[in-house]
Amino acid sequence: MANQTKFTFGLWTVGWLGADPFGSATRAVISIEETLENLKAVGAYGITAHDDDLFPFDSTEQQRRAAIERLKKGLEATGLKMPMLTTNLFSHPIFKDGAFTSNDREVRRFAIRKALRNLDLAHEMGAETFVMWGGREGAEYDCAKNVVDALARYREALNFLSSYVVEQGYNLRFALEPKPNEPRGDILLPTVGHALGFIETLDHPEMVGLNPEVGHEQMAGLNFVAGIAQALDAGKLFHIDLNGQKGIKYDQDLVFGHGDLANAFALVHLLEFGKDGKIAYQGPRHFDYKPSRTEDWTGVWESARANIRMYNLLHERAQAFESDPEVQALRKRSKLDQLAMPTLNKGETAKSIHESSEWFNFNPEKYFNGEGAGFVQLNQIAMEHLMGAR
Amino acid sequence: MANQTKFTFGLWTVGWLGADPFGSATRAVISIEETLENLKAVGAYGITAHDDDLFPFDSTEQQRRAAIERLKKGLEATGLKMPMLTTNLFSHPIFKDGAFTSNDREVRRFAIRKALRNLDLAHEMGAETFVMWGGREGAEYDCAKNVVDALARYREALNFLSSYVVEQGYNLRFALEPKPNEPRGDILLPTVGHALGFIETLDHPEMVGLNPEVGHEQMAGLNFVAGIAQALDAGKLFHIDLNGQKGIKYDQDLVFGHGDLANAFALVHLLEFGKDGKIAYQGPRHFDYKPSRTEDWTGVWESARANIRMYNLLHERAQAFESDPEVQALRKRSKLDQLAMPTLNKGETAKSIHESSEWFNFNPEKYFNGEGAGFVQLNQIAMEHLMGAR
Amino acid sequence: MANQTKFTFGLWTVGWLGADPFGSATRAVISIEETLENLKAVGAYGITAHDDDLFPFDSTEQQRRAAIERLKKGLEATGLKMPMLTTNLFSHPIFKDGAFTSNDREVRRFAIRKALRNLDLAHEMGAETFVMWGGREGAEYDCAKNVVDALARYREALNFLSSYVVEQGYNLRFALEPKPNEPRGDILLPTVGHALGFIETLDHPEMVGLNPEVGHEQMAGLNFVAGIAQALDAGKLFHIDLNGQKGIKYDQDLVFGHGDLANAFALVHLLEFGKDGKIAYQGPRHFDYKPSRTEDWTGVWESARANIRMYNLLHERAQAFESDPEVQALRKRSKLDQLAMPTLNKGETAKSIHESSEWFNFNPEKYFNGEGAGFVQLNQIAMEHLMGAR
Amino acid sequence: MANQTKFTFGLWTVGWLGADPFGSATRAVISIEETLENLKAVGAYGITAHDDDLFPFDSTEQQRRAAIERLKKGLEATGLKMPMLTTNLFSHPIFKDGAFTSNDREVRRFAIRKALRNLDLAHEMGAETFVMWGGREGAEYDCAKNVVDALARYREALNFLSSYVVEQGYNLRFALEPKPNEPRGDILLPTVGHALGFIETLDHPEMVGLNPEVGHEQMAGLNFVAGIAQALDAGKLFHIDLNGQKGIKYDQDLVFGHGDLANAFALVHLLEFGKDGKIAYQGPRHFDYKPSRTEDWTGVWESARANIRMYNLLHERAQAFESDPEVQALRKRSKLDQLAMPTLNKGETAKSIHESSEWFNFNPEKYFNGEGAGFVQLNQIAMEHLMGAR
Repeated sequence: MANQTKFTFGLWTVGWLGADPFGSATRAVISIEETLENLKAVGAYGITAHDDDLFPFDSTEQQRRAAIERLKKGLEATGLKMPMLTTNLFSHPIFKDGAFTSNDREVRRFAIRKALRNLDLAHEMGAETFVMWGGREGAEYDCAKNVVDALARYREALNFLSSYVVEQGYNLRFALEPKPNEPRGDILLPTVGHALGFIETLDHPEMVGLNPEVGHEQMAGLNFVAGIAQALDAGKLFHIDLNGQKGIKYDQDLVFGHGDLANAFALVHLLEFGKDGKIAYQGPRHFDYKPSRTEDWTGVWESARANIRMYNLLHERAQAFESDPEVQALRKRSKLDQLAMPTLNKGETAKSIHESSEWFNFNPEKYFNGEGAGFVQLNQIAMEHLMGAR
Repeated sequence: MANQTKFTFGLWTVGWLGADPFGSATRAVISIEETLENLKAVGAYGITAHDDDLFPFDSTEQQRRAAIERLKKGLEATGLKMPMLTTNLFSHPIFKDGAFTSNDREVRRFAIRKALRNLDLAHEMGAETFVMWGGREGAEYDCAKNVVDALARYREALNFLSSYVVEQGYNLRFALEPKPNEPRGDILLPTVGHALGFIETLDHPEMVGLNPEVGHEQMAGLNFVAGIAQALDAGKLFHIDLNGQKGIKYDQDLVFGHGDLANAFALVHLLEFGKDGKIAYQGPRHFDYKPSRTEDWTGVWESARANIRMYNLLHERAQAFESDPEVQALRKRSKLDQLAMPTLNKGETAKSIHESSEWFNFNPEKYFNGEGAGFVQLNQIAMEHLMGAR
Repeated sequence: MANQTKFTFGLWTVGWLGADPFGSATRAVISIEETLENLKAVGAYGITAHDDDLFPFDSTEQQRRAAIERLKKGLEATGLKMPMLTTNLFSHPIFKDGAFTSNDREVRRFAIRKALRNLDLAHEMGAETFVMWGGREGAEYDCAKNVVDALARYREALNFLSSYVVEQGYNLRFALEPKPNEPRGDILLPTVGHALGFIETLDHPEMVGLNPEVGHEQMAGLNFVAGIAQALDAGKLFHIDLNGQKGIKYDQDLVFGHGDLANAFALVHLLEFGKDGKIAYQGPRHFDYKPSRTEDWTGVWESARANIRMYNLLHERAQAFESDPEVQALRKRSKLDQLAMPTLNKGETAKSIHESSEWFNFNPEKYFNGEGAGFVQLNQIAMEHLMGAR
Repeated sequence: MANQTKFTFGLWTVGWLGADPFGSATRAVISIEETLENLKAVGAYGITAHDDDLFPFDSTEQQRRAAIERLKKGLEATGLKMPMLTTNLFSHPIFKDGAFTSNDREVRRFAIRKALRNLDLAHEMGAETFVMWGGREGAEYDCAKNVVDALARYREALNFLSSYVVEQGYNLRFALEPKPNEPRGDILLPTVGHALGFIETLDHPEMVGLNPEVGHEQMAGLNFVAGIAQALDAGKLFHIDLNGQKGIKYDQDLVFGHGDLANAFALVHLLEFGKDGKIAYQGPRHFDYKPSRTEDWTGVWESARANIRMYNLLHERAQAFESDPEVQALRKRSKLDQLAMPTLNKGETAKSIHESSEWFNFNPEKYFNGEGAGFVQLNQIAMEHLMGAR
């Protein structure tokens, strides 16, 4: 099944050189060509990038074009695609208080320009998704940011960019990437939920969806699978960032499945079998991880392979879980089939319920010491499938 | 200013007898009359309740009516109001797998009936807000709940209840109360954001807003003030639950301000001065806390008073902060006035920006080692106001 | 290998009836005989208990003896052992501010009496370990407890109990069970580390060790395996509580392995192969979990079986990991063999190092972009063993 | 009172230029002279440093000496002291897998050399405390580090360094600085407790104590004040790092008091009045914080001042709290005076208790619905003192 799954990697992921808040880089930069060849070799379908990953922030137009042409050649040579592009609005000192929601109006205007320019590039590269991670949109201190004002500015920027895409006729959709904190003390739109709520206040909600990241939701202690389900329910899973995180702490960006393994298993099950047993998300499986700072370049490519391997192993196990007749029986015992049915009978209204005798017939007391839900046993069988023990 | 603020208490708050997962009650029950008199004495404007706080789950209709009449008399005697009512859909064993989203269809139907009946009571009592905390809507295991199905059932229930309110012509709005976990491993609609997103998928989104609780958001490590600001931005702050929580752990329900004091200060500032320096939320200041299990009844009433005292002290300090000319100067230095201005010039479009020369004029380099934001100093002054040191 | 492993269960675990902070019991109590038979049937080696699990707090001496005799008969009938006993110093209202560290001196004295009495019972039952979980030893407010004084009282109690055991000649060791919070806002001796430090201040440190619980350490975001390793290093792993927890939140007490699966795998590996590839902990594998409130009695026994099944599956996988030649090669690549060697040469002293030329020979620069540690690949292989994929 | 308090700052704190995992520096470096003058101006008593803060990692001996002499001149000119020195064993790529516990033996040897050299420098500078933060001692993956081996290597290094200090006759004590994670996934000795336990396994436990940091303990959700009390109880509070942290997330290093304000108040109270109402810790109040990346150099010095101002304001409020007769009465009501008394009567032994009749006299039932502890009221008064409202 792995053959059909489209795995993509951010250029900044395998390209991360290991500098962190307490130490300098442990790896030396390699060329774009070498990067693409190695990604091809590990089985990637495509790559993604921020503008600043491709050419330095202060590039001249000539340098910028040269880098783009070089990238295109590399993509052609390897057959890799670029289905997603994004803009770096967080690294340069100018964005120290945010980009679209910086208190400094000139910075906000510059941020919109930088994004606009990158929308053109996304179109040029044939990308269909434009991810927006507002990592600097936030504050350390409650008095430093009027959040109502900041959301208004965020909305203004997204509306403006959306109308630009409409005007230009680009085949692009926006995908917001939530994160609760780091590098800011608190980041605006901290979770999948907050972004879903915000999207509905936009001029073009249909053009804007989500790019949830495993680790980001888990940094708030939230269940990633439940968040993805809500995004699917809202028709907003436009892209996805796969990686690993071990609980509530700094952003770890481990290999997918190297964090909460059981939740990763449930995630792959949801993506691949979540729509009545069929695939629920068609887009790329995008890895947004960091090869550990302890590794050399050999380890980098091993880690890239590990992401794909983990996904495929989980996919196989999810398939076995889905097909197991015992699982189907346990699900029925757990009444998951009833959950899929409407609660109300056809045609039933508030009025008709008031008139029915059901209220008096129902006996809540039978539920004490009554029939159990069977959830633990169902979960145990899921764990056994995950462990290849069935 | 305290005189105008409407403070309300849940009957289950001061009425909590101290039973917790590891110990039995430490206080004996008192009468509804004594409760109301004491709440009046501490300065409450009104009370709120679940149905099960007023009469036992298995009351006969006669017992139920008797309890309601007794409550009404008590309210009349004390002059206390009941601006909010809510339904207990989480204590009885029947709800062990949820109410509106239980896998068991009969339970879901019963839950709707229980809520309908309580909507009638809310109307009868003159309540304007109907809070819904779906504490059991969730799961411990990813395989035990199809979240997409569960959200569909949640929506079905809310749509049904909304149409009932419309049909009956009740003056009632729904307020969803998010919580990330406890008593379920993961609860549906875990944060303010998730509830905001969900509301937009309902038939009557205008009738459904939020009842955010300080501690619930903080249990996910989220900034409560930022969440409230997003709720205000969306026009969805229908009610609010004030209490205290010390970080990510079990639900503590401490006295308001006895948890994260600085965030409580910022919250009161937002509620009272968040709309261009004027009050931003007009509803009751509702305390949903628990008097510590260590306390006797004297301590219970002291703790109730402490909630109001904390709010009023924070209100005074927020007023002083708001009026301080130095604060106004520091805000200007921090460019908070610029954040309140649109980013785009009037009439500016994507097209016009492309044509302007501003892109070339702007010099990002000046921002390195350039002017700072002044946030730390502004926060220091805020802390000094909070500490009564200015 | 499962045959040799001694699995034990707390009576309060399978005996938990499902009452939680937001709901009442969902299961009705069963007899001690039925409990013991079922535990025998699921494969348990023995049981453990608090005094209050065996007879009510306010039992007469006659009732107490009757319950003890009945238990003994049940143990004899089933062949189950009771290797550990513990005292409930947290459920009764008297302990609302703690037991050994309650501010109320009379309560402290009563707590010591209750523990003394239970030491006699532990001796009578042939238990070798006496667990002490000080769940109420703590505070919600920093001003409510002078922690230095409280630690002095804790020490006083432990010293007294230790000297009693010495006097009586009992074959008993104490095992402290740390927990960071819940039911108190902050509990004294919150982690494995704090308890280790405290033990060294006692009169009889050799008699006091630890009973770490998976979920308790994970409630502080700590790596349980690393904590157990430090306890082993200090010779203090006297007992262990196995269960599952999904991150930093309320105490979940899930089935072992139903929380952080990868960490559970590493734990079993450490326990079974952590001493130069041999077993590192010889005591019982004690499950301290709660069958989910959603389950009936059938589900309770399924959940008890699931604990043992998880341990055995992880044991098998740890064995395969340990024996895999590729793993051995990868460990060498990762220099784990070097970590097992002393850093200093034999006879090397501070003085001799000063005189050596090594300082000048060592070239740190070669480590930039140099050889990587190979950790990601090693972890990937571990995950594959865990998933039964090798 | 501020005049007598010795405030010190790490050179790396005000010297932090703002580079973080997602962005480059926002401030340009300034000279050591300018730094010292500014620290003098804000009211500092002294400074502290890592070796790498004073001279680059790869300095020649000549460059190193030049930097040291320049520092000495600066100290002389300003009158600032250097009571603490520490070694950077975490920034250079060589330390990517740790220093004293790196799997690579050559790295471990180099780390010892680097530390030895810095002990000489500490002695030369007149420092009395040598802090050791083992930020890279840890792992991301359980299979990558045998923790028992790693602790043995840690111990070996500390024993070696201790014996060197003894040999040389230096007036130096070691202070371990715990941290749970970041930059490693899990760090060895993650909390105050783990370090306390570890110290007792060393050859010279009397020479090794702690340097706890506010934010580090709070990153594990632990109560910093309770941790400091346990360190004081063990006689191990050798140094302290003051800063601010908002809950469980990445290491924020905010200004002291700009995180959990109530806990900061309790901390200052403990340090200044924790020993029978007198000062409990005599060492420097050392700020280990980071001026926010949003700030310019003016903001840096404002933030430095803010630390001192916060400490002094909290000191004043703690003094008022301590002297308030109502507080003294409330403490008595809360039986804090009883907590300070031994639980056992003089001469009481296990034997004598068995013979006493007290067991039968004590009536636990009176504690249900009995006298409350008064903790909430006491905490409310504490909050009012903190807010300057009394």
